Amino acid sequence: MEKYILLDHGSGGLASQNLIGSLFLKYLKDPVLQQLEDAAVLPAEQGQLAFSTDSYVVDPIFFPGGNIGELAVNGTINDLAMRGARPICLSLGLILEEGFAVAELEQIIKSIAAACDYAGVPVVTGDTKVVPKGKADKIFINTSGVGIIEGGIDVTARKAQSGDVILLSGTLADHGITILTSREGLQVGGNLQSDTRPLHFLARSLVKDFPGEIHTMRDPTRGGLGTTLSEIAKTTGLCMEIEEKAIPMQPEVRAACELMGLDPLYLANEGKCMVLAAPEHAEKILQTMCSTPEGRDSAIIGRVSAKHSGRVVLTTVSGGTRLVEPLSGEPLPRIC
Amino acid sequence: MEKYILLDHGSGGLASQNLIGSLFLKYLKDPVLQQLEDAAVLPAEQGQLAFSTDSYVVDPIFFPGGNIGELAVNGTINDLAMRGARPICLSLGLILEEGFAVAELEQIIKSIAAACDYAGVPVVTGDTKVVPKGKADKIFINTSGVGIIEGGIDVTARKAQSGDVILLSGTLADHGITILTSREGLQVGGNLQSDTRPLHFLARSLVKDFPGEIHTMRDPTRGGLGTTLSEIAKTTGLCMEIEEKAIPMQPEVRAACELMGLDPLYLANEGKCMVLAAPEHAEKILQTMCSTPEGRDSAIIGRVSAKHSGRVVLTTVSGGTRLVEPLSGEPLPRIC
Repeated sequence: MEKYILLDHGSGGLASQNLIGSLFLKYLKDPVLQQLEDAAVLPAEQGQLAFSTDSYVVDPIFFPGGNIGELAVNGTINDLAMRGARPICLSLGLILEEGFAVAELEQIIKSIAAACDYAGVPVVTGDTKVVPKGKADKIFINTSGVGIIEGGIDVTARKAQSGDVILLSGTLADHGITILTSREGLQVGGNLQSDTRPLHFLARSLVKDFPGEIHTMRDPTRGGLGTTLSEIAKTTGLCMEIEEKAIPMQPEVRAACELMGLDPLYLANEGKCMVLAAPEHAEKILQTMCSTPEGRDSAIIGRVSAKHSGRVVLTTVSGGTRLVEPLSGEPLPRIC
Repeated sequence: MEKYILLDHGSGGLASQNLIGSLFLKYLKDPVLQQLEDAAVLPAEQGQLAFSTDSYVVDPIFFPGGNIGELAVNGTINDLAMRGARPICLSLGLILEEGFAVAELEQIIKSIAAACDYAGVPVVTGDTKVVPKGKADKIFINTSGVGIIEGGIDVTARKAQSGDVILLSGTLADHGITILTSREGLQVGGNLQSDTRPLHFLARSLVKDFPGEIHTMRDPTRGGLGTTLSEIAKTTGLCMEIEEKAIPMQPEVRAACELMGLDPLYLANEGKCMVLAAPEHAEKILQTMCSTPEGRDSAIIGRVSAKHSGRVVLTTVSGGTRLVEPLSGEPLPRIC
């Protein structure tokens, strides 16, 4: 195998077949993928289909806590999970820059395979393109995913109701601040790392144990919790009231945000979900979330009301209130 | 709306929402897409699932006969069609370069919408990322697609048999030669244009009208007919015998290939399918193909045998024979 990616690896011919055979199929072992047909064929399933896509252009491609590969696997699994779906398979579309180190590609593919194994969701179909040096930046990854939604599960922003509690499955802004500090080469102390992880185990426990009570789930990625809540507020016309002091945050993330002058409400999370649920069993829902490894720092962070229609209102640590608008005008590019 | 794409359009915040609302949803009107949830949810379907992905990095993005947008729609539909699937939905993942002209993006989205309408396959979920100027080249598109395979349909390379006829649904190399000449600014006369088009109508007629007789279908895209036949030969251990004089080609494509010293067997097609079928009803299958607009120039171009195991053998116009190897060492980058 060559040390660097050549244009020929994207030709569809012999070099492409070698790359697929000697690298991709070495780690990605799903039997459907190994057939290398134009499309994967999977058994019939009972239930509605969930379908989602995301492209990943994160910079740097390796960062504390993960790399672009596992981010791509977990991110798309999470989009399916947020609808209450059982993810069944992923596609993997790679765009590589000529000259990209094959050793780095191999490390990314290994991470993809490990993330798929952990999640129990295989890559069943893929595609690789190569563009000339300078026409892309190392590697961009698209993953799309298919999931199955079993009868009765209906989790959507449109089901949010006044009176719902707002839960968050853990600490805020870990991914966003990790990427920003590691891109800028900032040393901020502590153990900053991305929270990239799959949320479908947690999400499916919730929809199974509390059918009908889990109204809305969202993973606040790009744009952060502030933007995600704003979208739900806008969609539903309801008011999202959150309490700053109730939002879990790691001290090093808080310190880095203060240092860099960034609002953690707008920073990306890659392994956290926000849940809007009926209030009756809020404590039990919280316990269920806290009993999972990915949700052990879960907290109730607020409540849905009709107070300010279509708005997000934050009660600050000092007891004041402020409106939280969707992210605007402060681009944080290539965060995922 | 701004005239050029800004980093902020990929932030996930307000600018992203404006781009989605004022441009994407203006043309892409599927009600599931319009919900803008993390994942699309589609009704339950009966049958096996087909799933495929492709990224498109074609250069130039606008070319005679089409643009990157419709190419992305048709290409993924065709990958599903080649397994006999009924395509039901697509995802659309965009990677945009900062500074890309919004007017060009709009033209591409319009083409995507038109191609989806023509094919009857909607975009139901999407994602847009923006990278800084110089970190990508204008626009890269990933489409993934889901299809349904109804009971009994099983079209795969592994079903190819000795004695099968090899059919091609029309003229060879139109797309590849169009991209290469238009990228290089070559004037070769005639009416060269890409053959980008969906093949699922044609493919589904075949699998319905000739159940069990259509063994293998493939669309010879990157790597061309030569590489596609080589892959099937390698997978099955059979010999693919084709006749040069039976392969349909437009005179201007033949002339351009001669001028540029390119072998049309290795040039990409984006609207042609190759069919391996039982010989008994070969003429009827050919008639069915010829009766469709996308297959009107179909021809029987060869036969599967056991003569040279795992090989592709071409009988040339002059009556000699030569082995056709998979494409190697002649990279034709960014052809799709």
